[in-house]
Amino acid sequence: MEKIREFELSKEYLESLKESVEAEDIAFIRDTMDGANEADVASLLDELDMEDALFVLRVLDKEFAADILIELDEEPQFKIVQEMDSPELASLLDRMESDDAVDILHQLVVKDREEVISFLQEKEKSGHILELLRYEEGSAGALMAKEFIKANLNWTVVQTIDEIRRQAENVEKIYSIYVVDNKESLIGRVALKKIILSSSDTKIKDIYEEDLISVPTYMDEEEIAEIMRKYDLEALPVVNAKNKLVGRITVDDVLDVIRDQAEEDMQAMTGISDDVEESDSVFRLSKARLPWLMIGIFGGLMGARIIGIFDEGLRQYVELASFIPLITATGGNVGIQSSSLVVQSLAAKSVFAESIGKRFAKVLLVAVLNGIVLALLVFGTVVFVYGNKVEFGIVVGLALFSVVLLASFMGTVTPIVLDKFGINPAMASGPFITTANDLLGLAVYFLVAMMLLKL
Amino acid sequence: MEKIREFELSKEYLESLKESVEAEDIAFIRDTMDGANEADVASLLDELDMEDALFVLRVLDKEFAADILIELDEEPQFKIVQEMDSPELASLLDRMESDDAVDILHQLVVKDREEVISFLQEKEKSGHILELLRYEEGSAGALMAKEFIKANLNWTVVQTIDEIRRQAENVEKIYSIYVVDNKESLIGRVALKKIILSSSDTKIKDIYEEDLISVPTYMDEEEIAEIMRKYDLEALPVVNAKNKLVGRITVDDVLDVIRDQAEEDMQAMTGISDDVEESDSVFRLSKARLPWLMIGIFGGLMGARIIGIFDEGLRQYVELASFIPLITATGGNVGIQSSSLVVQSLAAKSVFAESIGKRFAKVLLVAVLNGIVLALLVFGTVVFVYGNKVEFGIVVGLALFSVVLLASFMGTVTPIVLDKFGINPAMASGPFITTANDLLGLAVYFLVAMMLLKL
Repeated sequence: MEKIREFELSKEYLESLKESVEAEDIAFIRDTMDGANEADVASLLDELDMEDALFVLRVLDKEFAADILIELDEEPQFKIVQEMDSPELASLLDRMESDDAVDILHQLVVKDREEVISFLQEKEKSGHILELLRYEEGSAGALMAKEFIKANLNWTVVQTIDEIRRQAENVEKIYSIYVVDNKESLIGRVALKKIILSSSDTKIKDIYEEDLISVPTYMDEEEIAEIMRKYDLEALPVVNAKNKLVGRITVDDVLDVIRDQAEEDMQAMTGISDDVEESDSVFRLSKARLPWLMIGIFGGLMGARIIGIFDEGLRQYVELASFIPLITATGGNVGIQSSSLVVQSLAAKSVFAESIGKRFAKVLLVAVLNGIVLALLVFGTVVFVYGNKVEFGIVVGLALFSVVLLASFMGTVTPIVLDKFGINPAMASGPFITTANDLLGLAVYFLVAMMLLKL
Repeated sequence: MEKIREFELSKEYLESLKESVEAEDIAFIRDTMDGANEADVASLLDELDMEDALFVLRVLDKEFAADILIELDEEPQFKIVQEMDSPELASLLDRMESDDAVDILHQLVVKDREEVISFLQEKEKSGHILELLRYEEGSAGALMAKEFIKANLNWTVVQTIDEIRRQAENVEKIYSIYVVDNKESLIGRVALKKIILSSSDTKIKDIYEEDLISVPTYMDEEEIAEIMRKYDLEALPVVNAKNKLVGRITVDDVLDVIRDQAEEDMQAMTGISDDVEESDSVFRLSKARLPWLMIGIFGGLMGARIIGIFDEGLRQYVELASFIPLITATGGNVGIQSSSLVVQSLAAKSVFAESIGKRFAKVLLVAVLNGIVLALLVFGTVVFVYGNKVEFGIVVGLALFSVVLLASFMGTVTPIVLDKFGINPAMASGPFITTANDLLGLAVYFLVAMMLLKL
């Protein structure tokens, strides 16, 4: 990446930064970070101990420190927020947009939160923050900022420019001016481009566009991300039940939502708890991975019990053991395919989605079709290539067919049920559910075999 | 979602639209779609047959039809583009921004592409398109548009506003004005807000910001998405090797890149080929899922052969069969955890990443630690709960330990190797690799058992 003003985001600079913190060389820190981007400095501070990072933040300009604090990774940010006392934290929050301030406050217990708010200097901002804190996390209300520019439809362009000037300090990025009527209802927008190109006495009502997408405060953040992607929006106004404009969501926040969601899904699928990265300590990495591996182990141990039940049959027909991996692996693959298709369609929420009944009929048909193809393939190989008895080929083929049906059904139902209970449906592809499916598959395989072979 | 101007995105409207196309009721189509959002209309046309969708596009205003064509899903868009003749397609491309026009052209074979370009009316645009077509797909050059506003640093604000007026038709969304010197080198930017708030005779050089992030034409689109997320950008200027400003990437394109990447990863992991959705036909869904399931089946059949080799030993020690699912499941879980951590760190490309040697040492340590914990757990259960011989507990524990080490190693190496060969590393969590790991795990399990039990 090339930048006009180069800031050294390198291991070497990180070392000299650590040394300068050690030596309390405040001048070095201030000089080298002058004009740097807050996100770059945050990446550096993420690599420091909490005390060192806090030292750097404290010697920098408060405006800059506030911007950096917002950009820190979850863990270092949490630690630093806990460490600061209320007046210090409040002085930084005073320099943030309301939505960022609320993100920080969410990391404190309610008691500390209120204390910090009492230290805020700007009364308007503390009002905004108290309002935003009321919305449920993950909703449009919690994601929006109270900073935006609105204009009454009877204003002229010059009046609107005055409003922009008045708010210039508070609203970092202006994309559109939102237009409201005398009742403060949102009725449209004017692009900044149009303000520039119109003469100063033009009335807003003559240049605004009615074609505008807004969302209610309770809308879920994932749905918001999909709307902003679909309609190519960089900002989205939020309205309350009376269509009064109450906030604005910007695309940078949505990019973070999408990233966090992807990471959460990945964690649900791989069963890695916590927010671990490859660069974390061995102990932390190990601890994050063990719980889910243990669920798999308990599943495996229970599987051993299930197979143990069929001990006698297995002794007579030891070839049955050879096909255990075939059965469990196919069940697993079918289950993951089914659930990922459901998860995908749950996320898309299309208006044109088919009815539940029709969807299940389709899942069943696909399963029957695939089950037949796979069962025939396995039957053929077992009998004609591996030279087993036809009877045995039928056993393995039929067991496989049953497992494909079962895994399709479980893979389809599980994410829907999880979603109903407010659990991330991606969990359906995770270790817990796949382990349960393995056990079911094993039981079905041996039951079918025992019945057909009359063991 | 609430909108100021309501457009009926409903099953009922879809039905009446189909009827009106059947009856060639052009007035109904034009009236009901007047003022609708292009993305909404595209969602509707995605549900129609190609001929019907084309009919609708042809009766609408060309400007609107061009916007809708851009927003269509991959498959309907491809079909419609193939169906149109060159002058018709060219007349729509004339009304698109250059990057969108290039996306459409990429769907044609080279010969047709050149013919369409020869029909373009605007000579400046066809030059832009020819330039963009030269860049490799997935690079900044291919993602950028040639439409942006630039100003010379010696211009005044009023000169810049004239330039904005001149380009207003071509550049739909202006975020910043890019500032260049006399050699056309990019040296900074001015926010539109600042243009509005400055007096008309202010010089650009007195108000522009030097602090600007730009990317080279060859940068990969995923890296671009991460930069825009990290630095909260809504647009990103692209420069050539001489730092000359050649294009601009906007955040709406990056949102599409992120979505496509997530879908691609999901497909790599679940082994569902093609772009299928739950709403596709049974046959198509079945066909998309079968190839990967078959790979799993062949793996399972080979697994049966491997277990067959140890037939004699298995007859003597039938309990060995019971622990097959434990071994394959744990190997699979460990492998997926390892590879997803690597995939995550490949995507992040941190400056502070540790060296390869250090990373492998860590992977090994984590594997040893987890392997010991899990092996002890299984040993304890097998011996003290299930009442097997100590000797047998050691066999299962040791085999499990080996499989955890092996799966960690394979899970770490595979995505790195895939990435080196330009293959999506997420494939490492897909059916092909997990099947291979299953087989390795089985072989290790039985080899360890046979050696220790002297079978």
